[in-house]
Amino acid sequence: MTRLFNKIGLVARHGKPHIIESLLGLAAHLTKRGFHVLVDKDSCDNTHVAGYPIVDRDDLGKLADLVIVLGGDGTMLSVARVLAPYRVPLVGINQGRLGFMTDIPLHEMLVAVDGILDGQFVPEERILLHASVIREDAEVVSALALNDVVISRGSLGSMIEFEVFVDNQFVYSQRSDGLIISTPTGSTAYSLASGGPILHPTLQAFALVPICPQSLSNRPIAVSNNCEVEFMLTRGLDTKVHFDGQSHCDLMEMDRVIIRSYRNTLKILHPVGYNYYDMLRHKLHWGERLL
Amino acid sequence: MTRLFNKIGLVARHGKPHIIESLLGLAAHLTKRGFHVLVDKDSCDNTHVAGYPIVDRDDLGKLADLVIVLGGDGTMLSVARVLAPYRVPLVGINQGRLGFMTDIPLHEMLVAVDGILDGQFVPEERILLHASVIREDAEVVSALALNDVVISRGSLGSMIEFEVFVDNQFVYSQRSDGLIISTPTGSTAYSLASGGPILHPTLQAFALVPICPQSLSNRPIAVSNNCEVEFMLTRGLDTKVHFDGQSHCDLMEMDRVIIRSYRNTLKILHPVGYNYYDMLRHKLHWGERLL
Amino acid sequence: MTRLFNKIGLVARHGKPHIIESLLGLAAHLTKRGFHVLVDKDSCDNTHVAGYPIVDRDDLGKLADLVIVLGGDGTMLSVARVLAPYRVPLVGINQGRLGFMTDIPLHEMLVAVDGILDGQFVPEERILLHASVIREDAEVVSALALNDVVISRGSLGSMIEFEVFVDNQFVYSQRSDGLIISTPTGSTAYSLASGGPILHPTLQAFALVPICPQSLSNRPIAVSNNCEVEFMLTRGLDTKVHFDGQSHCDLMEMDRVIIRSYRNTLKILHPVGYNYYDMLRHKLHWGERLL
Amino acid sequence: MTRLFNKIGLVARHGKPHIIESLLGLAAHLTKRGFHVLVDKDSCDNTHVAGYPIVDRDDLGKLADLVIVLGGDGTMLSVARVLAPYRVPLVGINQGRLGFMTDIPLHEMLVAVDGILDGQFVPEERILLHASVIREDAEVVSALALNDVVISRGSLGSMIEFEVFVDNQFVYSQRSDGLIISTPTGSTAYSLASGGPILHPTLQAFALVPICPQSLSNRPIAVSNNCEVEFMLTRGLDTKVHFDGQSHCDLMEMDRVIIRSYRNTLKILHPVGYNYYDMLRHKLHWGERLL
Repeated sequence: MTRLFNKIGLVARHGKPHIIESLLGLAAHLTKRGFHVLVDKDSCDNTHVAGYPIVDRDDLGKLADLVIVLGGDGTMLSVARVLAPYRVPLVGINQGRLGFMTDIPLHEMLVAVDGILDGQFVPEERILLHASVIREDAEVVSALALNDVVISRGSLGSMIEFEVFVDNQFVYSQRSDGLIISTPTGSTAYSLASGGPILHPTLQAFALVPICPQSLSNRPIAVSNNCEVEFMLTRGLDTKVHFDGQSHCDLMEMDRVIIRSYRNTLKILHPVGYNYYDMLRHKLHWGERLL
Repeated sequence: MTRLFNKIGLVARHGKPHIIESLLGLAAHLTKRGFHVLVDKDSCDNTHVAGYPIVDRDDLGKLADLVIVLGGDGTMLSVARVLAPYRVPLVGINQGRLGFMTDIPLHEMLVAVDGILDGQFVPEERILLHASVIREDAEVVSALALNDVVISRGSLGSMIEFEVFVDNQFVYSQRSDGLIISTPTGSTAYSLASGGPILHPTLQAFALVPICPQSLSNRPIAVSNNCEVEFMLTRGLDTKVHFDGQSHCDLMEMDRVIIRSYRNTLKILHPVGYNYYDMLRHKLHWGERLL
Repeated sequence: MTRLFNKIGLVARHGKPHIIESLLGLAAHLTKRGFHVLVDKDSCDNTHVAGYPIVDRDDLGKLADLVIVLGGDGTMLSVARVLAPYRVPLVGINQGRLGFMTDIPLHEMLVAVDGILDGQFVPEERILLHASVIREDAEVVSALALNDVVISRGSLGSMIEFEVFVDNQFVYSQRSDGLIISTPTGSTAYSLASGGPILHPTLQAFALVPICPQSLSNRPIAVSNNCEVEFMLTRGLDTKVHFDGQSHCDLMEMDRVIIRSYRNTLKILHPVGYNYYDMLRHKLHWGERLL
Repeated sequence: MTRLFNKIGLVARHGKPHIIESLLGLAAHLTKRGFHVLVDKDSCDNTHVAGYPIVDRDDLGKLADLVIVLGGDGTMLSVARVLAPYRVPLVGINQGRLGFMTDIPLHEMLVAVDGILDGQFVPEERILLHASVIREDAEVVSALALNDVVISRGSLGSMIEFEVFVDNQFVYSQRSDGLIISTPTGSTAYSLASGGPILHPTLQAFALVPICPQSLSNRPIAVSNNCEVEFMLTRGLDTKVHFDGQSHCDLMEMDRVIIRSYRNTLKILHPVGYNYYDMLRHKLHWGERLL
């Protein structure tokens, strides 16, 4: 029987000793089953992980057939942005409260991983954003985002002003705390807190969600992910653009941020029985009644 | 030179004498230009429209190559539901404030129509909903909707309770005033007033928007229009399902409403220069600032 | 020692046999302690409640020093509207999930009631609304409401149009599903589901909360309860005004509804340790985190 | 006839030469009518304002019977915070779009001011907030605010975490972009953009409005202005507290901000005919219909 996956990369949330324990347990299990295990270098910083090749995260993308992430949705986001260029599928294990993407609880890890490696999984493709910051016609930064690209005011407390174009068509000028450009994956994160809609992961769409807009008619809008969204900062001295809330870049007035769909999608493998709506209901307490 | 369109159907908002005047002016103009004009029977009820064939609305669908609607978005909705099976493109003329779909002002009617008939237009495909009401395994009603299918409580003032499934997967139970299933076209109508997102017309999506839900985490969700949405009424004595707010059907407890994408789209032809975002900005006063 | 209360009225949610059992247990306990017990007639309809005077609900107001309500917030609302003219304090016992006003669980009933009768309680004054429906200068209906007066569209599915005045000053015209005029007590009920603010019970204020308004800038506004609010229906064929969602009256176009603060407040007695914010946090799941 | 006001202070928005022109015109007019004119020092920085006593803003409070502010609502806010201790009434003149508080247009300035000085005015009392920042039991900053006290995350893009107490009762812990504590005056400013209710100026209330809270049930709540609100920052490295969005102070984790009603109210004098709802309708475009 041919295996779907041979080389398995393992990544753990940085700086959590008990997660490294779980990682080592998983590594031993996989090795025993005859898989080739690679361990992410950043995961085991200052930790003794003997017996497995330690590789840079980028090399994980090149070498591994599958990457298993132990941590929360935040860890998954940071791994996804690095590995997206390599099309390696990801599996998410959560040691605490289940995440939207890290949907395998730690105590079911070995059984769930075995099932997935045996080909029993529900694959899911997630779109990513590619953002490019343009200053006077030159790109100063580019970055990927799995959740969202957020342009927001800084700590001075004044709203910023900006213009938005979609496929070179003027959409609106706005005065607000900022703008979220969210993927379906990000639609249950910051976007939801700002009044954005939930977008099912199969939707080929972005949501443009204003943050506390001064004009009460500035409402969230969802557009096709074939669109190119252009944000131009017209006023705001202390403005930043954030990628998944994990890295950021200062913006100057008249800077533009161009957001497109990234050419690759991210493939996440879920255990059999995975159901997006179950997760949503669980996370949003939809089963519960108010009164 | 071959013409794109030969037989032109004309429809006017019912019961407005001055619109019939405009219709007659347009009919004369088209006849002079050599087009074959058909007039919708319901439009000219009790009005003397001599010299043109008067046909049933369904027959307009069968006979006409293009149908021009004089009225507002409400007229456009009612015409669209009847003509959708026939794939006839529509053009909308508005005698009052411009609508989202009736975007040609009356005073530009002749020039704009001439342009469109000469092949100068921006075509737009809009998806429709097909709804089927099931009572004890038998369909009791089926209907189309271009804007929305709305299930809502009646006048007794009690919230209704229901369950929603998407592709046979349970999504949530809910206690609320009702649920809106909206197309992108309907996303700027009742759905927007209920907190739903704006969906760009090119999105292949429906929005499920709760109306005043008791649970504060019941938020709008957009799903692919390949989905089948099933609504099941579990409690509510005075509940109705509405199609574009123009026709309706009583629901009994345990009735189900199955909503799918209709097999045909509606084609709307806009004059050259049409821009969805311009219209949105105009209708939602996005140019204006609050303070 | 003088007692604060001698004659204790008992009311139970209609038609629930196990609540009558609880009521009888409470009645026996109170009699043994030497209190005079009166039982509400509507509570024991078709039930054998021997040994206690059975009185009309209005007479409860005249005769009792304190009324104990066994049921949920709905029962409390209906009792409050009848008893408000008599200034009798109320105590709420809940047999199921705790309510905002019925905050004593059944299993703590005897201990909590004993404490209250011994003068150990936290009193709370709640304002009520008095609404008067005026048709052609004559009052056709008047009613009280502890939660809210709601004017809303019927089942035909069309929005209604109306004008609102506060102290004879024009506030706005509006097209919507209706308008909620809510007390602080009602601010956690339907008003909250419609986007209204929570008003602390000590606030001397009403909230005017639009239901799905077509204009996106029509936002909730809170005004002093010294104000007189006037609602005038300008368009809407199937419109009703609801009092606490429990009784209602049809409205005709050009009817006016005048809403003022009722002259009496309702006094609710809570066990020692009662805390409004604890209740709010419990009911709204404020302890829980989204992600 | 005794005059209500003799010494009139004049303040103009800083750094706008044409406003200084208006101020000088007003000063000449008032002098001619026999009033004693005092000019604010900050208003005429680097400008030649001969013939009138130039005084510090604090001294304006001590010396003037009435202060006339030429500028926008922003200027009014900054003047109000300085003059509130002195109980001097204010009049607002706006040279551009009318503000909520600066409701006299420049071209009606002389007539309106004459009327007010002759005793023809509508007085309005506005409550202010007093905020005190406590670090390890010592007050590090205290400030007034007429609109709002806002605690918000900085530019790093992570939500902050905090606890809120009202009159020493725990209300909630929250993860969000921040919290707005707003007066009725501020309820139409940033609070409104964040989903807060409009509070009529006569309401003796504050609104606590979460900014993009992660938990969807964290809704705005209005409490009596007799309350003491305590905010405690539990997590957030780059957090600031803002007073009217015009001055701010860095917060450290475990810092507390105590907010109470300020002992004085601010008195604003409006021309006869002033109507709060007219202004609201004008500013929020309530006269306009969506579709």
